[in-house]
Amino acid sequence: MKAIGIYEGAPSAKSQQFAEIELAKPVPTGDDLLVKVSAISVNPVDTKVRQATAVQSQLKILGYDAVGIIDSVGPKVTEYHRGDRVFYAGTNQRSGSNQEFQLVDARLVSLAPQKLSDADAAAMPLTMLTAYELIFEKFQAKFGPQANLGRTMLIINGAGGVGSSAIQLAKWAGFKVIATASRPETVEWVTKMGADLVVNHHHDLWQQLGDQYADKIDDIMILHSTENYFDVAAKLVRPLGHVGSIVETSKPVALGKLKDKAASFDWEFMFAKAKYEIEVESQGKILADLAKLLDSGAVASTRTQTINSISTTTLQQAHEQVEANKMVGKLVLVGPFN
Amino acid sequence: MKAIGIYEGAPSAKSQQFAEIELAKPVPTGDDLLVKVSAISVNPVDTKVRQATAVQSQLKILGYDAVGIIDSVGPKVTEYHRGDRVFYAGTNQRSGSNQEFQLVDARLVSLAPQKLSDADAAAMPLTMLTAYELIFEKFQAKFGPQANLGRTMLIINGAGGVGSSAIQLAKWAGFKVIATASRPETVEWVTKMGADLVVNHHHDLWQQLGDQYADKIDDIMILHSTENYFDVAAKLVRPLGHVGSIVETSKPVALGKLKDKAASFDWEFMFAKAKYEIEVESQGKILADLAKLLDSGAVASTRTQTINSISTTTLQQAHEQVEANKMVGKLVLVGPFN
Repeated sequence: MKAIGIYEGAPSAKSQQFAEIELAKPVPTGDDLLVKVSAISVNPVDTKVRQATAVQSQLKILGYDAVGIIDSVGPKVTEYHRGDRVFYAGTNQRSGSNQEFQLVDARLVSLAPQKLSDADAAAMPLTMLTAYELIFEKFQAKFGPQANLGRTMLIINGAGGVGSSAIQLAKWAGFKVIATASRPETVEWVTKMGADLVVNHHHDLWQQLGDQYADKIDDIMILHSTENYFDVAAKLVRPLGHVGSIVETSKPVALGKLKDKAASFDWEFMFAKAKYEIEVESQGKILADLAKLLDSGAVASTRTQTINSISTTTLQQAHEQVEANKMVGKLVLVGPFN
Repeated sequence: MKAIGIYEGAPSAKSQQFAEIELAKPVPTGDDLLVKVSAISVNPVDTKVRQATAVQSQLKILGYDAVGIIDSVGPKVTEYHRGDRVFYAGTNQRSGSNQEFQLVDARLVSLAPQKLSDADAAAMPLTMLTAYELIFEKFQAKFGPQANLGRTMLIINGAGGVGSSAIQLAKWAGFKVIATASRPETVEWVTKMGADLVVNHHHDLWQQLGDQYADKIDDIMILHSTENYFDVAAKLVRPLGHVGSIVETSKPVALGKLKDKAASFDWEFMFAKAKYEIEVESQGKILADLAKLLDSGAVASTRTQTINSISTTTLQQAHEQVEANKMVGKLVLVGPFN
């Protein structure tokens, strides 16, 4: 089977050497499924992991999101069978989805949404898991249509993959959603996703929101440059509210600014459950819930671009696009591997 | 009526000028109760507020915790009546409990535990509200006897007022409790409160706990020197776990150390609800729950010292003792004011 990866990261995808090798088809053991990968997406985290990869003696196979057909199952697997179409984001502890056949823990998987194409489904797992865990686990929103009426959420960097999923999920759950975007096409996109109000994160958020929303926003999601937005988030968040982020900080944070409000700061990191083997099965269950929302049309795929081939060339092209940091929605690659 | 307070803070209680003045007995309006104060406690926050008080033209009346008898009620109050015995921590937005008659919002109040003396009851509101909100709101523990079996909590500085309440509440709720204490009498005290394991916060907590508890402690409560304990808390907390603090930071915090575990940091500040008028009535309800726990003996008063007089002299003495930062449990002053 074909597998694509790298032996050493490069700071720019343009200078990255992607390699393709032939590997023996794996055999699933224990809780594992072996999935024939049909479509994948490239997330910003793929490019960050690629950049940070030191010299490897074995090929490092990148990629998280995947849609595929189960080829065979490990002896402990009872819920899934050969031929089932599944989708998942997997784990950062094992080889990724940029290969023809991938081993994945069945607990991290759900049947794919039936009404979505491979391309549309492949765009969703990592970003929706991240958005779901932030909204319904970290922020403790109620999971249900219109279940959080009266609550307001600010999503900083709404047009990216996680933001696009988060806007839709928060709207479905009844939040008033304020999203940030800076270009005409991203403003249009976050509005299409359901944002009630769009503000520009390249301008001062306090000036744009402070008069109306000081101490008023229940939950604030920082999806870009945590350090740049922490202070304004502390001023906008309501007392007892939550500020959550997925973007690591490079220096200490003035955490004390949240104290007087008795507010909380939540880190979201989708891979923590699998990495530390905590609540692992929750991710499969979340994906099953999300598949229902996607099939019902309550939430739409955020796929905006599709490349109809998975190869060293198309992967490099995809990394370049995602790395340019101007994505609107998600970029998907559909097989075959060639 | 007599009221005790200050016109200007002093860095040390030994040099503080407490003054006593005569004020007209207030008349309750709206949601207010007028309470004839029977007993009060002095908390560390009293000394911090006193120290930070700039010159005042009017007497600043300190004090939070109180037990007393309702003298009269505002026109909106239906739940309480003259003669009811109540306890509360009040708010930092109004004159405090160091006066013969105090106005307090009825929503912040509960009937006092029937089986406890004024002295025993006066020790509890502020510390138990703080401990309750951390454990059952911020850490999202289940409220019920043994309802959190399998979870472990670390309470840094267990022998103080909040720590002593927190150990008991966490034990009642089923946690395994690790508390820190440094002197023989504090070790004995936290053990009496119910700690399963005691470690010394003056020695390296990682060396004492790391082997067994790295990535294993569900919830960590920092009740002293947040900056000194944040890093070790980040190493001990379990993935998806919570670190909570009540002690403000004087400099930025390496918040990123919690990211890989997708953990949360929660500030607890008991006065935030009343100050920002959010979930105000929850505090009266919490106190009612706590009164039941105190009456049932599930939780005991943490009073360790009692002064049988409330005056400028005894308040100064109480501030000195609390300020010395060596308290075990709580210090209470019982009326009359004289």
